[in-house]
Amino acid sequence: VADAPTIAGLYETVLYGEDVAALAAFYADVLGIRVVQGPSELSAALRLEDGGMLLLFDPRLAGRPGRPVPSHGASGPGHVAFRVPPGELGRWRTALSEGGVEVEQEVEWANGGTSLYVRDPAGNSVELTEDELWPL
Amino acid sequence: VADAPTIAGLYETVLYGEDVAALAAFYADVLGIRVVQGPSELSAALRLEDGGMLLLFDPRLAGRPGRPVPSHGASGPGHVAFRVPPGELGRWRTALSEGGVEVEQEVEWANGGTSLYVRDPAGNSVELTEDELWPL
Repeated sequence: VADAPTIAGLYETVLYGEDVAALAAFYADVLGIRVVQGPSELSAALRLEDGGMLLLFDPRLAGRPGRPVPSHGASGPGHVAFRVPPGELGRWRTALSEGGVEVEQEVEWANGGTSLYVRDPAGNSVELTEDELWPL
Repeated sequence: VADAPTIAGLYETVLYGEDVAALAAFYADVLGIRVVQGPSELSAALRLEDGGMLLLFDPRLAGRPGRPVPSHGASGPGHVAFRVPPGELGRWRTALSEGGVEVEQEVEWANGGTSLYVRDPAGNSVELTEDELWPL
């Protein structure tokens, strides 16, 4: 439709875990992402440099009906990928190693690009890349 | 740490559902997000205007061990929020209504800003906003 409204981009991505404080500590202390609200038992909100938001929720609480917003809450390992500034992936490899964070896997993509994968304390798969990995 | 590496922003956000084709059709046809890979039984990849990626996975397949990447896969309703261009939220309200997509809830936030919430075919909670809803 010619005058159809549009979507501009990602605003919030969500990961779940039953210990929100431990999750928030991981994203703040290990990945250096800024906490702007919480952590509470329910949730924490972290602000990325590009303005996007990483939200962390305890799915047992976020999934309860009767909250002021629609309920949601998933169990099992989720996934998120973060962009790192060009040239910094190698420094991440070093920093994670020195910080005692195991890199579960490093993938060199057939079409170019590299991803480092770690797990957060809830078992979510967290990917770091400085490259464009998908078709434009 | 002074020379610690940094995270630049969100790159991939993930939602799960057992019918990837139906999910991809919703995000492409209802929300107008561009499919750049798939859908396959496993996954689809959609590109947002800001360069971010929305990935859709069947958690039963994405969660199998032995894939070329770390396994992941959550069940239950997840959540994502998308930015819409300033001034377009009202057009979204109209377009969703005319398209037969129920707005589950509309929230006027105490600190300003409005969110529209819909459900995708897998039950994930999808939020649209044109406002800044979180502390900077």
